Amino acid sequence: MSKLETAMDTIVNVFQYYSSNEGDKFKLNRRELKNLLQGELSSYLQVHRDPQRVEAIMSDLDMNMDGSVSFEEFVAMVTELTVCSSSFFQDYTTPKINEMK
Amino acid sequence: MSKLETAMDTIVNVFQYYSSNEGDKFKLNRRELKNLLQGELSSYLQVHRDPQRVEAIMSDLDMNMDGSVSFEEFVAMVTELTVCSSSFFQDYTTPKINEMK
Repeated sequence: MSKLETAMDTIVNVFQYYSSNEGDKFKLNRRELKNLLQGELSSYLQVHRDPQRVEAIMSDLDMNMDGSVSFEEFVAMVTELTVCSSSFFQDYTTPKINEMK
Repeated sequence: MSKLETAMDTIVNVFQYYSSNEGDKFKLNRRELKNLLQGELSSYLQVHRDPQRVEAIMSDLDMNMDGSVSFEEFVAMVTELTVCSSSFFQDYTTPKINEMK
């Protein structure tokens, strides 16, 4: 596997680890999302200091409005967070969501 | 860094390696995309056997119609390919693009 394929494999494994706990194994419910954010992205998001932030993120994430987060929605969120935090993107203007539709 | 953050860092590095060669360093043009597909995703896409496939992928990718591929568009493509190839997702029904808008 290439480095890119290995990285995507890791992301699937992280998603699966959290999404398989309750209900639909292909979706993160609110509790699973919260656990994932705290376990894997706590340096990006200070979840424990601001519990309402999880609600806000879930709301942004849930593009198809079914109350849970698919793998595609999850990766789109992590991508946004990566652009915000990576030094490579410091001069990059993020495309507006509406421009991408 | 968590495993997830390390994986996203790898994806940024792969994107940067190819996108920095020509023109806008935050975008992949057609040649850069072709090189990336051949170098990093050749087991998913048999690019060398079907050159028109690159045009088709670029066309699908380029959601904001500017003729080049942003990091967000690139990650969305790799995510789709991952869902198609990962054994975890074999029973998963991919959401229609229109349902996600």
